[in-house]
Amino acid sequence: MTTEHNPSALAIPPRRILLGPGPSMVHPRVYEAIGRPLVGHLDPLFLELMTQMQQRLRQVFCTENQLTVAISGTGSAGMEAALVNLVEPGDEVLVCVNGVFGNRMSDIVGRVGGMLHRIDRPWGEVFDPQEIQEALDRSPATRVVAIVHAETSTGAWQPLVDIGRICRERDCLLLVDAVTSLAGVELRIDDWWIDACYSGTQKCLSCPPGLAPLTFGPRAVDKLQHRQTKVASWYLDLTLIQQYWSERQRLYHHTAPISMNYALHEALALVLEEGLESRYERHRLHSRALMAGLAELGFAPAAQQGHRLPVLNAVWVPEGIDEAQVRRRLLDEYNIEIGGGLGELAGKVWRVGLMGESARRDNVHSLLMALGELLTSTTDSAEGTAALDAARAVYVS
Amino acid sequence: MTTEHNPSALAIPPRRILLGPGPSMVHPRVYEAIGRPLVGHLDPLFLELMTQMQQRLRQVFCTENQLTVAISGTGSAGMEAALVNLVEPGDEVLVCVNGVFGNRMSDIVGRVGGMLHRIDRPWGEVFDPQEIQEALDRSPATRVVAIVHAETSTGAWQPLVDIGRICRERDCLLLVDAVTSLAGVELRIDDWWIDACYSGTQKCLSCPPGLAPLTFGPRAVDKLQHRQTKVASWYLDLTLIQQYWSERQRLYHHTAPISMNYALHEALALVLEEGLESRYERHRLHSRALMAGLAELGFAPAAQQGHRLPVLNAVWVPEGIDEAQVRRRLLDEYNIEIGGGLGELAGKVWRVGLMGESARRDNVHSLLMALGELLTSTTDSAEGTAALDAARAVYVS
Repeated sequence: MTTEHNPSALAIPPRRILLGPGPSMVHPRVYEAIGRPLVGHLDPLFLELMTQMQQRLRQVFCTENQLTVAISGTGSAGMEAALVNLVEPGDEVLVCVNGVFGNRMSDIVGRVGGMLHRIDRPWGEVFDPQEIQEALDRSPATRVVAIVHAETSTGAWQPLVDIGRICRERDCLLLVDAVTSLAGVELRIDDWWIDACYSGTQKCLSCPPGLAPLTFGPRAVDKLQHRQTKVASWYLDLTLIQQYWSERQRLYHHTAPISMNYALHEALALVLEEGLESRYERHRLHSRALMAGLAELGFAPAAQQGHRLPVLNAVWVPEGIDEAQVRRRLLDEYNIEIGGGLGELAGKVWRVGLMGESARRDNVHSLLMALGELLTSTTDSAEGTAALDAARAVYVS
Repeated sequence: MTTEHNPSALAIPPRRILLGPGPSMVHPRVYEAIGRPLVGHLDPLFLELMTQMQQRLRQVFCTENQLTVAISGTGSAGMEAALVNLVEPGDEVLVCVNGVFGNRMSDIVGRVGGMLHRIDRPWGEVFDPQEIQEALDRSPATRVVAIVHAETSTGAWQPLVDIGRICRERDCLLLVDAVTSLAGVELRIDDWWIDACYSGTQKCLSCPPGLAPLTFGPRAVDKLQHRQTKVASWYLDLTLIQQYWSERQRLYHHTAPISMNYALHEALALVLEEGLESRYERHRLHSRALMAGLAELGFAPAAQQGHRLPVLNAVWVPEGIDEAQVRRRLLDEYNIEIGGGLGELAGKVWRVGLMGESARRDNVHSLLMALGELLTSTTDSAEGTAALDAARAVYVS
């Protein structure tokens, strides 16, 4: 039952259960918001929406940073915006790489003309603050440290507060990729001494992809204001973008993606109505249930113990399973999307996202039931029942 | 009756009549499409939608270019994508400037490290092919000529075919900004020897802002493949983006803005159902009616005679009118948005967009009636009636 060549399926897409690395599922209120009638990008109503959205973004980022905006592109545009604004040609930058997205940051630093210092950890592991300290000892002129909070490619969860302290002591800027963590696991920009941070909308914010929340603290703004060179990108130049977002200026830069901003504005309202702590706890709960069930099916966690993201559950695919075929059958027969491995983990891991609206008990059950059925050819069918029992035990505990 | 501080207006925005420089109005089928349930960016259904969308974009661009995609950002991201991919540090680029957007192209060429040759025309006028010829005689190493087809800041409509021929003879690439022209006035990429072209969704395509259609011909692709340096932007790097859009590869680059792509896919269907020639004619008709009515109210066209865009009607604001106040009253009291002047034309011109779904007889009538009422304090009220009569004469002719 493949839907691939059914043209009408494009007009009425199936309601996929989105348990991949994003996009995650979207609340009906957000679908309603994205279809609201357009107003202009300089309409007083839209400017008011921007102001409200900034206030909501600050709450979700746990920051008072004035320069808190939504970049008009996806999370990767957020990454590029953060780096291209903070790094000038010749600036020394330390990038911590333990997966695809740290790697991407290194790539961008090179394109911007920064002098790259790179430290690596095996994929799935996290960095010890000591390693950052030593790297800064080796390269004391480093001005920016870039690190990923939640590595979407591996499911590793990087602690940040001690690294923040070290960067502050060394007068380095700390730049954090929070694409997969924002609104899913704790993230405290101000308390953790994070100077610049970006995210995406299609992960734990449960909004369609297309915008990149970004926040710059006073030290990052200071760097921006004292640049010797123009920002290499006009589109992502925060010295211009902030003039549009500033309530006192509202200078036209580019035409904002109105509908996407309607959607994010509503998605942020849902996050704040639930409350950040409750939302973090919900993600932890469903991850525990999922991982208990997956363990019964023979899937072991892939990320470093004690540093596993609840929102992106990476597991090793057991020997003997044709992982691409099973993922395809999950999609075609059960309407469930999960993620395969990226980069050096391709074909080896699955990445099961439980982000935002996707982190629901019925979704955990649906996936475990489907896998129980699909894997009976290679495992004992009793394991499917055991998987559901294991998840249930978590929910009733 | 200001709506500025009415919080509920954000949840249920008024149905604005959008007659500014974009966003234009959106057809209900496109609003329906943008709210469809998400599927993943690597879902076979989404990949099929991308393939269909490329076919539709090629038809609208009148091209067979393989590399025809939608960039995940607004029209300005399309501009940056075109320039950053075609221009390497030190490359000589001729930019033709007769308004804000030519100016923006010059700015970006500088940021990319290109060697800028710039020719200027007074705002509102267009370039004669002879001027491009002479500029290339002066700088024979020029490799790219960049020009705006439809200057959104002035309403000037630049003929291109002769410039295309000159560029082909000189082995230059011709790069065209078609943000405001695509699907509103004739644009023939292949027949006019245009090597690279970008647009935006929120003008004559009548889709919400957020994507930038872009097409590169074989000579532009050849330049891309023989670059000596990496593209300065990772997010806009077409050597990577084309691997995602290629049906044979479908390599993950970034998470596509799914909802925006649903919307553009549907907006393109509407364009093709209407037919390009009928659509161009519709834009011409409503522009003639509007300009006839505006003439009765004392507004003279601002762009060069014979080169006035039907989709973006720029007019001089008569002496004695507080143009900002009238525009604000149009918005607050009549729900009509029109555009003020940009750059050196700020405070001097109005820009009335009749793009895509906005180019309708009822919108022309609504604006002329509203202006007739609002301007009675400064003009004779009989002029309002005369304006409607003048428009009607166009429609019945």
